[in-house]
Amino acid sequence: MAALYDIEILATSDEEVRARIPVGDHLRQPLGLVHGGAFAAIADTLAVGATADALESGGARAISNQTSFLRPITAGAIHAVARRRHRGRTTWVWEVDVSDDAGRLCALVRITVAVRP
Amino acid sequence: MAALYDIEILATSDEEVRARIPVGDHLRQPLGLVHGGAFAAIADTLAVGATADALESGGARAISNQTSFLRPITAGAIHAVARRRHRGRTTWVWEVDVSDDAGRLCALVRITVAVRP
Amino acid sequence: MAALYDIEILATSDEEVRARIPVGDHLRQPLGLVHGGAFAAIADTLAVGATADALESGGARAISNQTSFLRPITAGAIHAVARRRHRGRTTWVWEVDVSDDAGRLCALVRITVAVRP
Amino acid sequence: MAALYDIEILATSDEEVRARIPVGDHLRQPLGLVHGGAFAAIADTLAVGATADALESGGARAISNQTSFLRPITAGAIHAVARRRHRGRTTWVWEVDVSDDAGRLCALVRITVAVRP
Repeated sequence: MAALYDIEILATSDEEVRARIPVGDHLRQPLGLVHGGAFAAIADTLAVGATADALESGGARAISNQTSFLRPITAGAIHAVARRRHRGRTTWVWEVDVSDDAGRLCALVRITVAVRP
Repeated sequence: MAALYDIEILATSDEEVRARIPVGDHLRQPLGLVHGGAFAAIADTLAVGATADALESGGARAISNQTSFLRPITAGAIHAVARRRHRGRTTWVWEVDVSDDAGRLCALVRITVAVRP
Repeated sequence: MAALYDIEILATSDEEVRARIPVGDHLRQPLGLVHGGAFAAIADTLAVGATADALESGGARAISNQTSFLRPITAGAIHAVARRRHRGRTTWVWEVDVSDDAGRLCALVRITVAVRP
Repeated sequence: MAALYDIEILATSDEEVRARIPVGDHLRQPLGLVHGGAFAAIADTLAVGATADALESGGARAISNQTSFLRPITAGAIHAVARRRHRGRTTWVWEVDVSDDAGRLCALVRITVAVRP
């Protein structure tokens, strides 16, 4: 998805992923804020990607995405840290903190990823 | 956001919005499925847009987005129906059903929109 | 759980369950409103129970509960209607509308139930 | 609510609350596990209570509760740690980790509390 072309993975493991996405016009809605869907898409990409990498399989897919929008981002970069909170037999659960350049928390996302046993 | 360039609003009121989005490569993730973030972005756009139109104000913003992914979409169009379930003094709540061309339910989204009293 | 002693199932199938729970002091928080946890518990019970009945197995368990509180209930009865929205191989998803005696919508609950394939 | 009679608050501030609830039969569903609704009710109580205490007002009420169930608890005590993640003008957001006696994570809860400006 276009929102994700410029995602820069800074560090990744099967327990934590850190990424940075510069804010461009393609991420903004008409009022100039980053679209809420971009936060959801970024979190989904990090959680599913890290799960798939860890399992060495294509059998990881998100089954839910719960995003709370706390503060808008209008410029600079989006900073995301995804932490794995649960590694079960059939699901992994990740929580993703999204912040702005000033380190202010802008969104909380919880992603449940279904994995093939 | 690029995901939303081609959104076609078929009918809109302050209680229900119907829309259709053709699936193109800009919506797909590498495996060829529509990216989960696209469903979240579409639902967000419909719910916030209809709330803002009804209030004739820019004072509507999503505070949460809860998406359950049920079935992938790979081609054709995304069909979304947003229904307002709650009209409160400080929040409106919308539920959005997302389906494919065959009418199969592919995602459920609940959006809470904060409004200025 | 005590909150659920008085639950009265009015109709049940593998697609829809209707129930009624009289409001008593054991459901109220100190300010006199029905506790939000009671809505979550009732919805969980209906969704998991109907799934387990349909599968004729004990292999149904809730993996998530997403409740939005719209309007308090203080007296009379809690009316709940659970509708199955998805019947997948590994999960069933239910949406539960909770209303008061006047038919006003008081809570929306979405329950994801994991099932053994 | 009966589920909450025995809640023991170990430490509380406007940023973090720690509590412990012994598991008794009144919290169990028929299979012997603590009912999912009990986790939701405990988290709701901690988040709303700490917000109301901080604001010195009765004007705090939960507007959403998002619980992910990771692992059942059958005996011992329920341990809950609620952390405030957002303090906005109209909402506070708390994340609550629920664990068992062995320190294993059993549920994740996110509570959004509406506050009067």
